[in-house]
Amino acid sequence: MSEHYMAPLDDLNFVLNEVLDYQRLFSLPAYEHADVKLAGAVLNESARFNEEVLGPLNSIGDEIGSRLENGRVKTPPGFRDAYWKYVEGGWPALDLPLEFGGQALPLTLQAACAEMVNGACVSFGMLPLMERAATRLLLAHAPRDIVAAYAPDLVAGKWGATICISEAQAGSDVGRISTRAQPRGDGRYTLSGSKIFITYGDQDYTEQIVHMVLARLPDAPAGTRGLSLFLVPSRLLGADGRPGAANAVNVSRVEHKMGLKASPTCVLNLEGAEGVLIGRENAGLKAMFTMVNTMRLEVAVQGVAVAGAASVKALRYAAERPQGGPPTARPTLIVEHADVRRMLYIMRARTEAMRALVLETAYQLDIAQAGAVDDRAGALALAEWLLPVCKACGSEAGFEVANLAVQVLGGHGYVADAGVEQYVRDSRVMSIYEGANGIQALDLVTRKLGEGGRYELFTARIRADLTRCRGQAPLAALGRALEDALNRLDACTRAVVAGLSKAPRDVEAGAAAYLALVGVVAGGWMWLRMAAAANGGSAQHRAKRAVAKFYIDYLLPEVRTLECRVMVGAACLDSLDAETLTG
Amino acid sequence: MSEHYMAPLDDLNFVLNEVLDYQRLFSLPAYEHADVKLAGAVLNESARFNEEVLGPLNSIGDEIGSRLENGRVKTPPGFRDAYWKYVEGGWPALDLPLEFGGQALPLTLQAACAEMVNGACVSFGMLPLMERAATRLLLAHAPRDIVAAYAPDLVAGKWGATICISEAQAGSDVGRISTRAQPRGDGRYTLSGSKIFITYGDQDYTEQIVHMVLARLPDAPAGTRGLSLFLVPSRLLGADGRPGAANAVNVSRVEHKMGLKASPTCVLNLEGAEGVLIGRENAGLKAMFTMVNTMRLEVAVQGVAVAGAASVKALRYAAERPQGGPPTARPTLIVEHADVRRMLYIMRARTEAMRALVLETAYQLDIAQAGAVDDRAGALALAEWLLPVCKACGSEAGFEVANLAVQVLGGHGYVADAGVEQYVRDSRVMSIYEGANGIQALDLVTRKLGEGGRYELFTARIRADLTRCRGQAPLAALGRALEDALNRLDACTRAVVAGLSKAPRDVEAGAAAYLALVGVVAGGWMWLRMAAAANGGSAQHRAKRAVAKFYIDYLLPEVRTLECRVMVGAACLDSLDAETLTG
Repeated sequence: MSEHYMAPLDDLNFVLNEVLDYQRLFSLPAYEHADVKLAGAVLNESARFNEEVLGPLNSIGDEIGSRLENGRVKTPPGFRDAYWKYVEGGWPALDLPLEFGGQALPLTLQAACAEMVNGACVSFGMLPLMERAATRLLLAHAPRDIVAAYAPDLVAGKWGATICISEAQAGSDVGRISTRAQPRGDGRYTLSGSKIFITYGDQDYTEQIVHMVLARLPDAPAGTRGLSLFLVPSRLLGADGRPGAANAVNVSRVEHKMGLKASPTCVLNLEGAEGVLIGRENAGLKAMFTMVNTMRLEVAVQGVAVAGAASVKALRYAAERPQGGPPTARPTLIVEHADVRRMLYIMRARTEAMRALVLETAYQLDIAQAGAVDDRAGALALAEWLLPVCKACGSEAGFEVANLAVQVLGGHGYVADAGVEQYVRDSRVMSIYEGANGIQALDLVTRKLGEGGRYELFTARIRADLTRCRGQAPLAALGRALEDALNRLDACTRAVVAGLSKAPRDVEAGAAAYLALVGVVAGGWMWLRMAAAANGGSAQHRAKRAVAKFYIDYLLPEVRTLECRVMVGAACLDSLDAETLTG
Repeated sequence: MSEHYMAPLDDLNFVLNEVLDYQRLFSLPAYEHADVKLAGAVLNESARFNEEVLGPLNSIGDEIGSRLENGRVKTPPGFRDAYWKYVEGGWPALDLPLEFGGQALPLTLQAACAEMVNGACVSFGMLPLMERAATRLLLAHAPRDIVAAYAPDLVAGKWGATICISEAQAGSDVGRISTRAQPRGDGRYTLSGSKIFITYGDQDYTEQIVHMVLARLPDAPAGTRGLSLFLVPSRLLGADGRPGAANAVNVSRVEHKMGLKASPTCVLNLEGAEGVLIGRENAGLKAMFTMVNTMRLEVAVQGVAVAGAASVKALRYAAERPQGGPPTARPTLIVEHADVRRMLYIMRARTEAMRALVLETAYQLDIAQAGAVDDRAGALALAEWLLPVCKACGSEAGFEVANLAVQVLGGHGYVADAGVEQYVRDSRVMSIYEGANGIQALDLVTRKLGEGGRYELFTARIRADLTRCRGQAPLAALGRALEDALNRLDACTRAVVAGLSKAPRDVEAGAAAYLALVGVVAGGWMWLRMAAAANGGSAQHRAKRAVAKFYIDYLLPEVRTLECRVMVGAACLDSLDAETLTG
C-alpha cells in the first residue's frame, strides 16, 4: 500500500472535461489568455507537485505538529521548504488577478488543484486558503494604496494571512465580538482584544502575516452591524514598504487539537496593535462575506479531498489484502466480500458526487464572475444555493468516507501507520469551522430559499437533465428514481417555505435534514450527469455507470428518512425546559 | 464544565429498577445471597470509585499513552495505582463464581458497573475485561488443576490476562491462524508464532499475565476446525505455584493508535513458549466462543459508556454556554437553539435506548444462566439474537454520540482540553474489534435468523409490549409508529430468510442494513418500555417520555431508508470486477 498521496487526476479530468461545460470557460474574455490544454498542464503539474512535495509531509505534520516556542510558532520539519516550493510554482495565485501577479485562471481549475493540495496535506492547504481569502477581501474593499502595499506580496504568497473572527464568547455568534478599535486620528487605529481559533495565526514561513480582523469602533452599534474590518500586519511597513518593526500582535497559545496538527490554531492577542480600516465603518461583516464563498467552497473541497485520498487508500488495500474464503484455498481478496464492496461503493459514490457538485459550483461562480452578462445572475443564484450544501455535505462526506476507509482496513486502519485514521481526525473539524453545518442549514432555509428563485433554478436544471436522459434506457431508470426523490424534495420545500413565516421554529428543527435532503438529491443529479457522460466502453466509463446505479439504489433512499425529519416540527424538541433536558 | 466523569446513576437505576424485572433476579437461587439493596450499594460505590479514581486518569492516559521501554510496556502515570485500588475494591470479580473468590452477582449489575468503568476510562477497562473473559474460558474448559492454579488469582485481579487470536494474515479470518503448538510429550506444548493487536499484551500492573492463545497442533485440519486453545503464562509457575522463570513470550511492538492510547496494543511473539492445552484438541475456536458473549456485550457496554460520558459533557456545555440571540440582550444558552436541541435529543435518545438494550441483554443472559429451567432456553435465544445487535449498534452509538458532542461544543470540542474529541478516537475501534460490525451483521443473518425461533421470540416480546400499551393514549401513539416499523422489519426478515437459501449474496449485501434496522426497532422497543415505566411527574419521568417521543418521531424513520437497503440485492455491488472498481 502506498503511504503517500495519489492524485485522482482521471476522476478530476472526467468531471472537468466530460461532465461540465468546461471548455466554454476558456472562450470567455476573462480566461481567453488560457485554454483547456494549458489548464490540463496545470492540473498535471499540480498532481505531480502535491504527490511529490506535500504528500510525504502529511504524516510528519501530524506526528510532530506545530507548536509554540518562545512566543513564536514552529511548524513541523519540511513544511517551510514545501511552502516556498509552492510559492515558486506560482500555486498561491492560480485564480487571482493578473494585475497583481496572479494567473487569473478559472476558480473551477483552482478548486480542482486545491483538491489535490488538500488531499495531500490539509494542514498545509490552510495557509494558502487564508492568503487567497485575505487577498479577495482587500481587492474588494481596501483603498488603492493599501491594495498596492499588500496585494502583490499576498498574491505571490510571500506574505501570509489570517482571518480573525472568533473570540472566546463569540463563535457562531459573531455579533458579540468585543475586540476594540480606537481611531488614532491619523487614519490609523489601535486594536485591543483577543481572538481565538486563528488558523496560521503565526508561522515561520513568511516574514509578514497580514491579519484581517473584525473589531468594534467606539460607539459602534451592538451586534453584527457594529463590526468593522481592519488590516493588522504582524510587522508594520516601513517607509520603503518593507515589513519593519513588530506590531503588537502576540500568540499566547497554540491549541492541542484532534487533527490538522501541522496547521497552528492560535490564540492571538492584539495589545494595542496598529491597523487600518478596510471598507466602511460598521460594514466589516458584510465585507467579510465577500470571502465567504471562497472559504466555504474551499472547505467543501477539503472534504472531497480527504474523501478522495481515503478512498484511494481503502480501494488499494481492499484490492491487495487477502482474507477469508475456504481455508484450503488461497484467501479471497477482501474486495470480493459483499460488505467490503458495499463500503467501497459508498465511498466512491459519495466522494465522486461531491467532487462533481463542488466543481459544478465553482463553475457557476466562474460564470457568475466572468460569463456572458445574461448568464451571470442565474449562475450566481445557483452557486449561492449550492454553497451551503457543498460546505455541509462536503465536510460530512470527508468524515464519512474517511471512517469507512478505517473500517475497510479494520484494526490496521486504527493504527497510525496506515495513514488513514489521520483523515478521520483531520476532517472532523470541517463540519465545524467556516460556519458550523447547523449554520449552513439555517443559511439555506432562511436566506437561500424563498426570494431569489434559487431553488426553482436548481430543480429546473435537474428536470432539464432528467428530460434529456428520458430516452436512454439505463439513464431513464436512474432518472425515474431521481425524479421521485425530487418530487419528495419539492413537497418538503413547499412545507419549509410555508413554515418560514408561519412556524419558523419548525423550519429550524428540520433545517439540518432539509440541507441533507438537498445534498442527496444534488448528488443524484451529479450521478445522472456523470452516467450520461460515461457512455463509452472504457473501464472508467463502466465504473462511473455502475457507481451511479449504486448511488441511486443505495444512497438516494436516504430521502425517505430525511423527508420525515424535515417535516417533524419543533414540538418534539421543545417539550422539555433546558434544565429537564440537560439535568 | 467538569473535566471528569460523572456517572449516570439515575439513568442506570431507572433502567434497572423501573424498566427491567431486576428484582426478580435476586429471588433466583444463584443470586439469593444478594438483594436489590446490596446491588444498589454496589452501584453507588462503583459510581464513586469510577468518578474519583478512574475519571481523572482518562486524559492523562490519552496524552502519555502506554509505550515500549526496554522490551516491556510502561503504562501511564497513575494507572498502576488505580488498578490495585480496583483490585482491592473487589471490582474484577463482580459476576465471577463465589468458589474462586468472586461475588457471583448478576451480569446485569456487572454490565451497569462496567458502563461506569468504561465511561470513566475505556483504556483502563480493557484489562479487567480480558481477565473476566480468560477466567470464563478456564472455568468452562480447563482441567481442574489448571483452574485451581490460575483461577483464584485471575478472579482476584492479581494476575492479568490476554486473548490472543489475530495474526498478521488472520484478522476476521481466524481460520488462517498459523501459530504452531508442538507437544513436548509431558502434557505441555511449545508455542511459536506471532500475534498482533493483543490488548494489554504486556503491562506493569501484575507479576503474571495469562495469555489465552489460539494455535495449531501438528497435522491439525486447515481452517477453524484445526485451532486449539492454549494457556501460556508470561512466567512459568514454580513448584510453589507462584510465577517463576520468564516464559518465551516477548513484546516486539506497541501500536501507535488513534485512541485508547493507555491500553497497550501489542505484537506478541511466542518464541518456543511453554503452554498447556485448554479443552480438546482442535476445539479451540469453539472454546473461545464461550467468551464471545462476555466480550461482545462488553464492547456494547463500552459504546454506551462513551455515548453516556459524551452526552453528559455536551448537555452540561449546552446548558452553560451563552451564544446567539438578540445582540442587545444577554445571549441565549445554546441549549435553546433548535439545532443544538436536535443534537442533544439524538444523543439522549440513542444512548439511553442502547443502555436499556444492553442491560436487557445482560438480564436475559442472567436468566439463561440462572433463571427457572423453563425460562432459560428462551432467554438464551433472545440474548443470542440481541448480542450482535448490541455489539454493532452499541459501538456505533458510542461513535455517533461522541461526534455529536464534538459538534455541540464546536471548535472547543475539536481541541483536546474539553476531553470530548478523545471519546471519538477511543470509540472508533469499537466497530472493529471483537468481530467487526460487518461480521456481526453476517452472524445475525446467517446464524441467528432461521432455525431457533430467535427472531420470532424477539418480535413476540415487542408485540406483547405493544398490546400492553394500546390502552394508554400517549403510549398508543408511540406504539403505532413502532408497530409500523415492526411490520416493515417483518417484511424485510421474510425476504432475508427466503434469500438465505436462494440468494445468499443478496442477503450479504443487505446484512449491515438489516442489523441496523433491527437495532432501530429494538431501540424503539426500549423507548416504548421506558415511556411506559416513566409514568410519574418527576423531571426524570417527564424527560424520558419526551425523549421517547423524539426517538419515535425522529430516529425511527431510519427504517424507511434501511428497508430499501436490505432489499437492494448484490447486483449493484457486483457489476464491476475488482480491478475496475478499485483501479
